Amino acid sequence: MSKTINDYNFDIVVIGAGHAGIEAGLAAAKMGLKTLVLAINLDTVGWAPCNPAVGGPAKGIVAREVDALGGQIAKTTDATMINVRMLNTSKGPAVRALRAQIDKHEYSMEMKRILESQENLFIRSGIASEILVENGKVTGVVTHFGVVYRCRAAVVTSGTFLRGKIFVGQKVFEAGRLGEFPAKALSQSLETLGFTLSRFKTGTPARIQGKSIDFSKMERQDTSDEPLAFSYFDEPRVLPKDYPCWLTHTNPSTHAVIRRDLKFSPLYGDVKLIQSIGPRYCPSIEDKVVKFSSKESHQVFVEPEGKNTDEYYLNGLSTSLPFETQVEMIRTVPGLENAVIVRPAYAVEYDYVTPDQLYPTLESKLVENLYFAGQVIGTSGYEEAAGLGIVAGINAAAKLLGMEQFVPKRSESYIGVMIDDLVTKGVDEPYRLLTSRAEYRLLIRHDNAHIRLSKYGYKYGLIPKWFYEKVLDLERQIEGEIERLNNVVVKPLSTLNNKLVAAGTSPIYQSTRLSQLLKRPQVSYEILKEFDPEPIEDLLLREQVEIQLKYEGYILRMEQELKRFERLEMEIIPPKVNYDEVPNLSTESREKLKKLRPRSIGQAMRIPGITPADIMNLSVYLKSLRNIGEGQKD
Amino acid sequence: MSKTINDYNFDIVVIGAGHAGIEAGLAAAKMGLKTLVLAINLDTVGWAPCNPAVGGPAKGIVAREVDALGGQIAKTTDATMINVRMLNTSKGPAVRALRAQIDKHEYSMEMKRILESQENLFIRSGIASEILVENGKVTGVVTHFGVVYRCRAAVVTSGTFLRGKIFVGQKVFEAGRLGEFPAKALSQSLETLGFTLSRFKTGTPARIQGKSIDFSKMERQDTSDEPLAFSYFDEPRVLPKDYPCWLTHTNPSTHAVIRRDLKFSPLYGDVKLIQSIGPRYCPSIEDKVVKFSSKESHQVFVEPEGKNTDEYYLNGLSTSLPFETQVEMIRTVPGLENAVIVRPAYAVEYDYVTPDQLYPTLESKLVENLYFAGQVIGTSGYEEAAGLGIVAGINAAAKLLGMEQFVPKRSESYIGVMIDDLVTKGVDEPYRLLTSRAEYRLLIRHDNAHIRLSKYGYKYGLIPKWFYEKVLDLERQIEGEIERLNNVVVKPLSTLNNKLVAAGTSPIYQSTRLSQLLKRPQVSYEILKEFDPEPIEDLLLREQVEIQLKYEGYILRMEQELKRFERLEMEIIPPKVNYDEVPNLSTESREKLKKLRPRSIGQAMRIPGITPADIMNLSVYLKSLRNIGEGQKD
Repeated sequence: MSKTINDYNFDIVVIGAGHAGIEAGLAAAKMGLKTLVLAINLDTVGWAPCNPAVGGPAKGIVAREVDALGGQIAKTTDATMINVRMLNTSKGPAVRALRAQIDKHEYSMEMKRILESQENLFIRSGIASEILVENGKVTGVVTHFGVVYRCRAAVVTSGTFLRGKIFVGQKVFEAGRLGEFPAKALSQSLETLGFTLSRFKTGTPARIQGKSIDFSKMERQDTSDEPLAFSYFDEPRVLPKDYPCWLTHTNPSTHAVIRRDLKFSPLYGDVKLIQSIGPRYCPSIEDKVVKFSSKESHQVFVEPEGKNTDEYYLNGLSTSLPFETQVEMIRTVPGLENAVIVRPAYAVEYDYVTPDQLYPTLESKLVENLYFAGQVIGTSGYEEAAGLGIVAGINAAAKLLGMEQFVPKRSESYIGVMIDDLVTKGVDEPYRLLTSRAEYRLLIRHDNAHIRLSKYGYKYGLIPKWFYEKVLDLERQIEGEIERLNNVVVKPLSTLNNKLVAAGTSPIYQSTRLSQLLKRPQVSYEILKEFDPEPIEDLLLREQVEIQLKYEGYILRMEQELKRFERLEMEIIPPKVNYDEVPNLSTESREKLKKLRPRSIGQAMRIPGITPADIMNLSVYLKSLRNIGEGQKD
Repeated sequence: MSKTINDYNFDIVVIGAGHAGIEAGLAAAKMGLKTLVLAINLDTVGWAPCNPAVGGPAKGIVAREVDALGGQIAKTTDATMINVRMLNTSKGPAVRALRAQIDKHEYSMEMKRILESQENLFIRSGIASEILVENGKVTGVVTHFGVVYRCRAAVVTSGTFLRGKIFVGQKVFEAGRLGEFPAKALSQSLETLGFTLSRFKTGTPARIQGKSIDFSKMERQDTSDEPLAFSYFDEPRVLPKDYPCWLTHTNPSTHAVIRRDLKFSPLYGDVKLIQSIGPRYCPSIEDKVVKFSSKESHQVFVEPEGKNTDEYYLNGLSTSLPFETQVEMIRTVPGLENAVIVRPAYAVEYDYVTPDQLYPTLESKLVENLYFAGQVIGTSGYEEAAGLGIVAGINAAAKLLGMEQFVPKRSESYIGVMIDDLVTKGVDEPYRLLTSRAEYRLLIRHDNAHIRLSKYGYKYGLIPKWFYEKVLDLERQIEGEIERLNNVVVKPLSTLNNKLVAAGTSPIYQSTRLSQLLKRPQVSYEILKEFDPEPIEDLLLREQVEIQLKYEGYILRMEQELKRFERLEMEIIPPKVNYDEVPNLSTESREKLKKLRPRSIGQAMRIPGITPADIMNLSVYLKSLRNIGEGQKD
């Protein structure tokens, strides 16, 4: 049998078609590379195996960052959302974020359709069983059918499938997800290549039949009355109020059932079947009951799984207790007294590749042109996966095209924060993005993802020129408008002062620049409109200008700090530096530096346990190296 | 943990949510019984794992029979079809049948929605691992999570999942279908209960990416221009012509590739991995090439899998040859020169329960209240499964309700033909319905399924009264109209004779009854309209009257034969008859009768190898038993 036809030769093979694999595959294919996306099950492309929702604090911002880079998650969310809200509108702009319920089946179908229609992209049913490596470089991927796909780069986005096991009480089954095969051979292949794998666990709540729920005992949460859209490329719209979410709460009876049956838990039970660690910020209900034992109630959001299904998701009641306990526990919750479980809750335990084995490009240090993204490197969440996936896809393609690698900065995106956290600090629990992880969160907001990132999307050919030019134009307009506001002076008219006082701020007693007034938190464009000779109407422009003026102080301080930080980030450590030759390093620092091989002095500083003195020693050594290099050039 | 709450107590548990399980579950729930439908994967309810189509010769008639009984297959087909045609319109009414392409995902979603909204019905994720039996009766079903569901009856509709194995070339994997878990424990449980399991195989072709197909080299097959509907309850409609099917053909190059690589086939190869038998009337392409070696070409229908997918099904190219062979073979077919495979073709081998272990009610002889339906008893096809499923569901419910069991007759339905064939003759290959299997096929037509079967649908509460009354009314109208036509006499007018001659039949020379003229094949209502003082307009009525008149001769002969046949069917053999006490039986007949335990003399006559003499001996013995019984009553 001939294997010479082009079915077996690709530039890039992406293993997995979840949220990471989709973005990786689309980015690589759009960059012109012949890309194969392998899926264990083609009917669960872009599946939402846990909550049927995209966005939320930090995560919603990541979805927009992926969009500004030219990714798909925001567009497909817009196309299939059934309930959407802007969170934290009463709080500062840094924590504002969109969150949408999606129709889970439509989302998956739409993602598959997008993959099918993408030029250069091929999707195929197959379980990857081996990664072929020659001379330290990826050369192919073998599937369990024994088909050999030759490639020049590969992206592993295998989610929870590597040696996946699911747990319901003390019952254990090998599965990637409920009803889906695990990927066992690929774990072995990665170990044979020298990768260190570790185990994490995560879980999902039961799904309930809607007709068994008494919604009258719950608090209704409708979709927003404001037009909203995740993607910069979609028109914001108001959704029909047909698919509300519902809020209810656990109570001491719920917790009593859980405590009574903890002995049957695979984590807390007499037999500890699961020893690995789960996501701190997405704990199971038994975790919450054990760790916050004084709390008498926890929130439970009851979320629809789609338009054409009667299944509801119990956000907050993730568990791996036995089925019988699940039934009893759920029925203690108001509105769920007669709830009927359609699918049981379960925990899943899986192998992940410890992310300290990756460069911040998401390429592995061990095998050239082998990239990783998503849950397989220890994260959790669809948006995190999408953010990592698009970076891995861009970089795999850029590498083959001889383009510069893309390393998003902490200061300009949550994706940058995440990657830096992962590769620098590693993970000791499934990693989730939180606004608190971002030291520059006032700079990396929901409202300015396009201003921050579209230059990269454009650079790698993933967003159209017209959009990038629109963003550049917006930046110029913001600058111009701030300058104009600096130059418009208003007198202390009583009409103006009345308005200021009514808005809850003090009157002015001398002529004042409009920009000065807009810096006050209480003052908006709307208030100043009649005193402004040339008021602007563009809402997006207004928003950016107001935020910039109001937070000017913070932003300035942040930007200064950022410059210092970026200088350290720019101080690149040559990849092949020999740490044994660096004088005076402590043993601990030397070991950690050899293991993690940071990309820059900035990254080296963030490694836990590395002292400032050692950073100094390293920096001096690198300067001496550079001087030698420069000396040679002369 | 308490197991007393009603989550664990059902009247009926249906194992499987495919085409058989759906009809069984819906029928039982509609009959008022608390029914649990267990599915290995709730995202593939009513899945079409093979061709994305419902209907075809015989099968289309079965779909309508299920509809007349109050089932779902026809309605969901109507709701999700994208291309529909009436087959054999140029042939006689006995072989006419509908065939539709369905949107496979929509079909599945709609079926799940129907199950979710059915009162008394519960669907749940779970793999049945054990059937509990006490005193020879079903008492429960245990799942792989260890959950025990108590029940009074169970219906096993496990499809190809029992110890399923899939094959691609010489590669073998345990799977119920591509990407789905097999059910291994349930096979063991059935064997422990004493059931005989055997193995069958079936297969499916590759799915191809539409954008890689050159449709210009194929023959287009559009949806019908006539309004059509499968269900009696749906308004016939004309579909948009957006989803044509395409016809192309294999050629000697295709066959050469197949012959060259036969050595890698799991059936024909040097290593015969599959020893079991596949469906004769749905053979793999290698079967066709081997068995019809002189034929240089076979048809290949290229069928869309749905509206929102670019996947196409290659009807006619089912294979279990290696992936590399599939690629090469497919590319020899006109229009598929650059075809890209999305999912490989594969064979699946699975356990089935030999159907001679069932009564014609589909209850097992071994365990009371345990019913079987669908592929698990050796059939193939969605429609066959649906037909068996609704009978099993009706009977499981009827048994618990103390109602009469439903045994559809060979003379009134394809479902009856199928069940009688299965339980009487057993199967030596996957059973498919064909018009040639029905000796009374002129009576059991596409057009009269409601007249034949709605009385049963009504009897078991599965169809509404208004519909049944409409059918009764139609029957009265047919009778009345035939009587009227018998009484209207036309004279040999030249205007009439011109029309008759133009239609290709002879003129009349004396006054003739309209009914007499309508018996001629060439004469329709339309032709006679102007000579009929009270012409009728109702098209359905016209159709029935024309068919009855034109085929009166055949039908009369058939009905006479039928009466004889029904007398034999009415000659019931008591279930507990002791065949050892029947005098003069041959050893072969005695063994077969003991094994198969036929329900009637008619059924006994159809058992291969039982001689007329032995039937006589048995009949005499039964009469003597009855005489004793009657004697006792006196």
